[in-house]
Amino acid sequence: MLVRLLYASRATHAMSEAELQAILKSSREHNPATGLTGLLCYSDGIFIQVLEGGRDAVNARYKAIVDDQRHRDVIILSYEEIGERHFAGWSMGQVNLHRLNPALVLKYSATTKLDPYAMSGHALMALFQELVNTGAIVCS
Amino acid sequence: MLVRLLYASRATHAMSEAELQAILKSSREHNPATGLTGLLCYSDGIFIQVLEGGRDAVNARYKAIVDDQRHRDVIILSYEEIGERHFAGWSMGQVNLHRLNPALVLKYSATTKLDPYAMSGHALMALFQELVNTGAIVCS
Amino acid sequence: MLVRLLYASRATHAMSEAELQAILKSSREHNPATGLTGLLCYSDGIFIQVLEGGRDAVNARYKAIVDDQRHRDVIILSYEEIGERHFAGWSMGQVNLHRLNPALVLKYSATTKLDPYAMSGHALMALFQELVNTGAIVCS
Amino acid sequence: MLVRLLYASRATHAMSEAELQAILKSSREHNPATGLTGLLCYSDGIFIQVLEGGRDAVNARYKAIVDDQRHRDVIILSYEEIGERHFAGWSMGQVNLHRLNPALVLKYSATTKLDPYAMSGHALMALFQELVNTGAIVCS
Amino acid sequence: MLVRLLYASRATHAMSEAELQAILKSSREHNPATGLTGLLCYSDGIFIQVLEGGRDAVNARYKAIVDDQRHRDVIILSYEEIGERHFAGWSMGQVNLHRLNPALVLKYSATTKLDPYAMSGHALMALFQELVNTGAIVCS
Amino acid sequence: MLVRLLYASRATHAMSEAELQAILKSSREHNPATGLTGLLCYSDGIFIQVLEGGRDAVNARYKAIVDDQRHRDVIILSYEEIGERHFAGWSMGQVNLHRLNPALVLKYSATTKLDPYAMSGHALMALFQELVNTGAIVCS
Amino acid sequence: MLVRLLYASRATHAMSEAELQAILKSSREHNPATGLTGLLCYSDGIFIQVLEGGRDAVNARYKAIVDDQRHRDVIILSYEEIGERHFAGWSMGQVNLHRLNPALVLKYSATTKLDPYAMSGHALMALFQELVNTGAIVCS
Amino acid sequence: MLVRLLYASRATHAMSEAELQAILKSSREHNPATGLTGLLCYSDGIFIQVLEGGRDAVNARYKAIVDDQRHRDVIILSYEEIGERHFAGWSMGQVNLHRLNPALVLKYSATTKLDPYAMSGHALMALFQELVNTGAIVCS
Amino acid sequence: MLVRLLYASRATHAMSEAELQAILKSSREHNPATGLTGLLCYSDGIFIQVLEGGRDAVNARYKAIVDDQRHRDVIILSYEEIGERHFAGWSMGQVNLHRLNPALVLKYSATTKLDPYAMSGHALMALFQELVNTGAIVCS
Amino acid sequence: MLVRLLYASRATHAMSEAELQAILKSSREHNPATGLTGLLCYSDGIFIQVLEGGRDAVNARYKAIVDDQRHRDVIILSYEEIGERHFAGWSMGQVNLHRLNPALVLKYSATTKLDPYAMSGHALMALFQELVNTGAIVCS
Ligand SMILES: Cc1cc2nc3c(=O)[nH]c(=O)nc-3n(C[C@H](O)[C@H](O)[C@H](O)COP(=O)(O)O)c2cc1C
Ligand SMILES: Cc1cc2nc3c(=O)[nH]c(=O)nc-3n(C[C@H](O)[C@H](O)[C@H](O)COP(=O)(O)O)c2cc1C
Ligand SMILES: Cc1cc2nc3c(=O)[nH]c(=O)nc-3n(C[C@H](O)[C@H](O)[C@H](O)COP(=O)(O)O)c2cc1C
Ligand SMILES: Cc1cc2nc3c(=O)[nH]c(=O)nc-3n(C[C@H](O)[C@H](O)[C@H](O)COP(=O)(O)O)c2cc1C
Ligand SMILES: Cc1cc2nc3c(=O)[nH]c(=O)nc-3n(C[C@H](O)[C@H](O)[C@H](O)COP(=O)(O)O)c2cc1C
Ligand SMILES: Cc1cc2nc3c(=O)[nH]c(=O)nc-3n(C[C@H](O)[C@H](O)[C@H](O)COP(=O)(O)O)c2cc1C
Ligand SMILES: Cc1cc2nc3c(=O)[nH]c(=O)nc-3n(C[C@H](O)[C@H](O)[C@H](O)COP(=O)(O)O)c2cc1C
Ligand SMILES: Cc1cc2nc3c(=O)[nH]c(=O)nc-3n(C[C@H](O)[C@H](O)[C@H](O)COP(=O)(O)O)c2cc1C
Ligand SMILES: Cc1cc2nc3c(=O)[nH]c(=O)nc-3n(C[C@H](O)[C@H](O)[C@H](O)COP(=O)(O)O)c2cc1C
Ligand SMILES: Cc1cc2nc3c(=O)[nH]c(=O)nc-3n(C[C@H](O)[C@H](O)[C@H](O)COP(=O)(O)O)c2cc1C
Repeated sequence: MLVRLLYASRATHAMSEAELQAILKSSREHNPATGLTGLLCYSDGIFIQVLEGGRDAVNARYKAIVDDQRHRDVIILSYEEIGERHFAGWSMGQVNLHRLNPALVLKYSATTKLDPYAMSGHALMALFQELVNTGAIVCS
Repeated sequence: MLVRLLYASRATHAMSEAELQAILKSSREHNPATGLTGLLCYSDGIFIQVLEGGRDAVNARYKAIVDDQRHRDVIILSYEEIGERHFAGWSMGQVNLHRLNPALVLKYSATTKLDPYAMSGHALMALFQELVNTGAIVCS
Repeated sequence: MLVRLLYASRATHAMSEAELQAILKSSREHNPATGLTGLLCYSDGIFIQVLEGGRDAVNARYKAIVDDQRHRDVIILSYEEIGERHFAGWSMGQVNLHRLNPALVLKYSATTKLDPYAMSGHALMALFQELVNTGAIVCS
Repeated sequence: MLVRLLYASRATHAMSEAELQAILKSSREHNPATGLTGLLCYSDGIFIQVLEGGRDAVNARYKAIVDDQRHRDVIILSYEEIGERHFAGWSMGQVNLHRLNPALVLKYSATTKLDPYAMSGHALMALFQELVNTGAIVCS
Repeated sequence: MLVRLLYASRATHAMSEAELQAILKSSREHNPATGLTGLLCYSDGIFIQVLEGGRDAVNARYKAIVDDQRHRDVIILSYEEIGERHFAGWSMGQVNLHRLNPALVLKYSATTKLDPYAMSGHALMALFQELVNTGAIVCS
Repeated sequence: MLVRLLYASRATHAMSEAELQAILKSSREHNPATGLTGLLCYSDGIFIQVLEGGRDAVNARYKAIVDDQRHRDVIILSYEEIGERHFAGWSMGQVNLHRLNPALVLKYSATTKLDPYAMSGHALMALFQELVNTGAIVCS
Repeated sequence: MLVRLLYASRATHAMSEAELQAILKSSREHNPATGLTGLLCYSDGIFIQVLEGGRDAVNARYKAIVDDQRHRDVIILSYEEIGERHFAGWSMGQVNLHRLNPALVLKYSATTKLDPYAMSGHALMALFQELVNTGAIVCS
Repeated sequence: MLVRLLYASRATHAMSEAELQAILKSSREHNPATGLTGLLCYSDGIFIQVLEGGRDAVNARYKAIVDDQRHRDVIILSYEEIGERHFAGWSMGQVNLHRLNPALVLKYSATTKLDPYAMSGHALMALFQELVNTGAIVCS
Repeated sequence: MLVRLLYASRATHAMSEAELQAILKSSREHNPATGLTGLLCYSDGIFIQVLEGGRDAVNARYKAIVDDQRHRDVIILSYEEIGERHFAGWSMGQVNLHRLNPALVLKYSATTKLDPYAMSGHALMALFQELVNTGAIVCS
Repeated sequence: MLVRLLYASRATHAMSEAELQAILKSSREHNPATGLTGLLCYSDGIFIQVLEGGRDAVNARYKAIVDDQRHRDVIILSYEEIGERHFAGWSMGQVNLHRLNPALVLKYSATTKLDPYAMSGHALMALFQELVNTGAIVCS
């Protein structure tokens, strides 16, 4: 049983580039062992992450993530049983913030500030998909 | 933004009737304040719960529930943004176990033992809905 | 060209029953002349109104209503060209507040407090329709 | 909650090019602050405008616009909650009148004179979309 | 090839009951010979008629009707090739005007005055169908 | 309200080229004033014409055409309220008979002789559309 | 492979009741052996028959029927591979002509004379089905 | 993962009532342990059986059944992953042959002899469902 | 009324190339007069033919063909009322047998031997269409 | 009646390349005679095979395969009546294991280890189809 989970959260303090890379590095080390793949985006104190994998693996990791002190107000935006992954190629891809231009954010939300707490899960998933299609994901 | 969340978990030890009633009692005290409604089912060491409410409220409570030491292996079975609630009438209804007869379980799973870990979220939600339709929910 | 418009607004001060009846009375006097029909609901400082009629007539009246000093923050929730009216029988029906019980509000929103500003137009229209179907409209 | 609003109105007097540019200039100054985007068309004494943005922002601005003394007979042609904007790239694009040739108007209306008061909202929105697709929008 | 035609027209002068009955009587004498069936409605100087039958027969009779000096401004509202008739039981049924109450007209149009020239063919056909369903047709 | 009307008729006598051009010439002079557009085809004593425009304009002209002594047996093949025109570019285009080859006629009818009286309106409209797509319309 | 075939034909001479019963009697004797079922209708010199059964059996019998000198101009109106029969209960039911009233014929055709040669197969099949539903089939 | 399997086979010799009851008895003893449910039908040397249960359990039992010397020519007619069982109430129901009347067989096949080898899986499943709906299953 | 008929038959004796050409030649002489078009395929003692045209013409010719002594066991595979022909370009095209390779036959049937008696009409029509698309038709 | 069957099994011992080629060689010798086509994949002790052909032929061969001592735990993943084959070009194609990279497996399953016992039939069929589309099949 494969599932795809999309959530957002608020960083408890502004992330430095080093702190962010630490999360990504450790994610890329952990995830292959349990078959997890996905994307992580950090911008202006907001995390958005999509996680794909077996149902048990995704839930186990999500429990760890929710309890992580580096962020709070974690809310699930979308969760579905899937037939195939969309992000199978990334053990944890990083969304390149320079592609996240204001016009793209505006397309799916009321202002140019990316605020997942004011968006539906469908809109945010569509924005993520558009980022992937335009090659805005770095590393894997 | 309303959401409906269905999860399952394994009790860390066999629940006594009193322990179960304690969870239900406290849920019915907490839930109205944040607009949560839903159902709880306990059977043979397995919890299954459906929670409806505002997106923030459901996620906040789910974080507390996942960390509750009375159960483990919590997995989300279904999560969706909804236009209207199905269980608006129950601050936390209890599924009457005597209605959960083997034939009904068999209808949706491979054996007569209710094992949400081996079921899809759709099947379990259908079973829950059938329980509601046949009046198998007690209290509110 | 028939249209149906649903909007919400915040009363600038708490309405007395007399003030509310004044609005209804004058609406029922004005509306037939221009073929307008609809419903008005007032609860806890919030107005919600649905207006049906010819496109010109609805827009002309809506301009007057938006400028009315008795309310502010008027937002359109739904507006559509229609083939037939749903509320043809009421020159301006009043929603009976005693039918607007918490459970019904909860069915379509996160808490028991009716807050159209946090709802989609579809959800609010569905709630209104349900009020009509359960006979919760008084006068005409 | 994103919405898209399309309306038409009659100028209270024939607009000079300078008057029109004044409206556009001030719109482009105001709109970004509240996340509004859209198009404005002026032709033969008729304004047609499409406004996209957050529901509160669009309604607040629409109230100001309806009360503007430079036009009257403002009628909403279309209003919908949307998942994504169509005109995210323009803080207020101007429809280039030279592209508004008679044949294009004729395609959607009974005569070559553009008369939104005799058209359905769908037809006018289709005409606008065709103008965008054929590159008939200037500035942004 | 069966077709159904719906048209409206303006009487050139106010019809007396006798004049109207004359039209109906002669229609019921003519129509069976060519397999025509349908309904006729007269109200406030407006005729509305639906004609069903073979394509040639309907067109031949429609040519005679359009040229009839008793009315003018004849406009077709709806015309379609059909698999089966809706009004097979009436050689020319008369719509009972007392059923044509204001509320029913209002349901499909902007004011209580029945004005087919301001309505779409679909709306008027729906109104006719509703009249049939409520038994508002007299004679046959 | 835009409509599209397709009809066929039988010429009362064989048309000379000059007579046909006279009809086309006068149509192209009349039609722009009332916003009419369309196509005319003459072949072997049969006229087929499609007329698009405002509902009143189309019906007024159709009344004149039906009474024209140059043809008889006028039958409507298709009539529909439309959102946009298909033939907006022609005040009255002439179907080039040399494109009306036998194989194309055969595609939509039982023999190579074009006989609209034995065809459904859909088939004839499809044939016309194919003629337009293959550039078989001359003048405008 | 089950099929259903509907055809019409013209009797070469007016059938007497005895001649008709002879056809029906022999059909009921022949058909069970090859698993054929169906209905036969004779009216005013026209036969209409529906035959259901295995593909080979229906075609073999149809070849015999086409060559039968008692009728001519046999045309297939409908032929389809089916998942289940509609007329499994009749080895060859006879359509009771007294139920074939003018109004029913008129519902599906241009005049009250039943003329399958001027009808589509769908319309005729619908008329037959309606006869069955109203109990108009005698014997079996 | 629940599946439903429908197969047919030819008995290697004519079954006595005792032999048939032996198969049913042993099936009802075996099946509950592995969560299998279903129906068995024997008629004129032909077995037809539907088996529902977990994918592993159904396949394991099917392997045993295919090798059973009491029948041969076993062919699968239908096999699908299912969300819920249709025959959850029978550990192995027996189809009552007296309900299997010729007319019902004829409805789904070319002759009155039930021959699954000449039928599609859909048709046979429909016939079985109809037997269940008409109460033709005995024991459980 | 246009129809398309597909049938298969068994040659009463093996056709020589000359005999086959005789059938094709005479078909191409006869068919244009009655507006028939289609394809003929002969292979290993089996004829398959598709005939398109007016309903009367197709049925009249089919009667002649069924009685032709050069083949027997004629079975209709498909028959439908159509809006437009697929084979309007061939008065009687011949399927080039060299394109009828085993792989193509296998795609639609159980073995490499083309046996229409064991195929559904849909499958055979699809095979024919594929032959046309791959240019496997010679002459016309 | 064509069917397509997909199954998986566990090799009773690790297959050598020679053993695998022996199975493929013998399959390619047997299959053409009964019109079977398909693909075979062996990886890490797991066989996955798709078989297409006539219903009797597929079932007869499947019985032989299930009893083959070289594997066990054979489970059907998918079985359907089909209109046309997907793998008509291979008497038994071999899936090239070098194309079966981890990312592709991950796309359809929870971990990079291909485990058909934990997958739905749809997912595995999709993976197979993707292998064919990317040219990962060798020999035929
Ligand atoms: C925004 C965010 C995203 C994270 N994503 C992942 C992830 O994809 N995989 C992962 O293993 N840990 C991730 N972590 C780290 C986990 O929260 C947690 O620290 C880690 O799973 C601990 O794993 P361990 O207890 O197995 O060492 C993330 C943390 C944050 C704050
Ligand atoms: C199976 C299960 C279901 C629960 N459901 C709810 C619930 O619906 N509402 C609730 O408030 N607490 C529920 N709880 C208790 C929470 O886990 C937690 O103890 C409680 O939310 C603590 O609330 P507090 O920290 O606000 O006191 C549940 C616990 C278990 C084990
Ligand atoms: C919440 C609310 C709803 C109203 N609804 C209507 C109405 O349906 N019809 C109406 O004529 N006036 C309505 N009014 C009053 C109008 O705002 C305005 O006072 C009235 O149209 C003035 O009409 P007049 O200028 O033609 O006298 C409403 C006012 C409020 C505050
Ligand atoms: C046809 C028309 C279109 C307008 N469009 C906009 C617009 O898109 N944005 C805007 O800020 N003002 C627009 N205006 C001006 C407003 O009506 C109003 O003057 C302006 O919002 C006043 O803003 P302020 O009160 O915040 O200064 C428009 C005016 C007209 C006549
Ligand atoms: C509103 C209206 C409806 C009519 N409907 C019919 C009709 O259904 N059938 C009919 O034969 N004549 C109808 N007539 C009369 C025809 O216009 C015309 O007088 C009549 O067909 C003349 O027939 P004749 O020339 O065959 O005598 C109608 C006239 C009017 C004004
Ligand atoms: C086949 C045919 C097609 C015609 N099409 C048109 C047309 O498209 N527009 C038009 O104005 N007249 C058309 N006419 C001419 C009209 O029948 C009629 O003569 C003309 O509208 C008279 O217009 P008037 O009375 O305004 O001079 C057509 C005539 C025939 C015979
Ligand atoms: C209108 C009509 C319908 C017939 N229907 C049937 C029929 O359903 N079954 C049948 O066996 N013969 C039917 N027949 C008779 C056949 O045409 C033919 O005479 C008969 O099948 C001869 O059968 P035989 O050659 O086996 O004796 C029908 C004949 C006519 C004229
Ligand atoms: C037509 C037929 C249907 C059968 N159905 C079942 C069945 O539903 N369950 C079952 O356990 N055995 C069934 N059997 C018997 C099995 O073929 C086999 O004898 C049995 O599963 C042996 O089980 P064992 O080896 O575990 O003793 C059936 C046999 C036949 C011939
Ligand atoms: C397989 C086959 C296909 C035939 N196709 C046609 C055809 O398409 N057109 C045709 O006129 N005759 C066709 N015939 C010949 C007819 O069966 C018959 O001989 C011919 O229509 C006699 O026509 P006639 O009686 O008008 O001379 C075909 C014959 C066979 C055996
Ligand atoms: C994984 C696997 C796949 C096989 N696939 C085929 C096959 O496609 N065709 C075939 O004839 N035999 C296949 N076999 C071999 C059969 O199991 C069996 O040995 C063979 O059909 C014996 O045929 P015979 O008894 O006719 O000699 C396969 C065996 C295995 C283990």
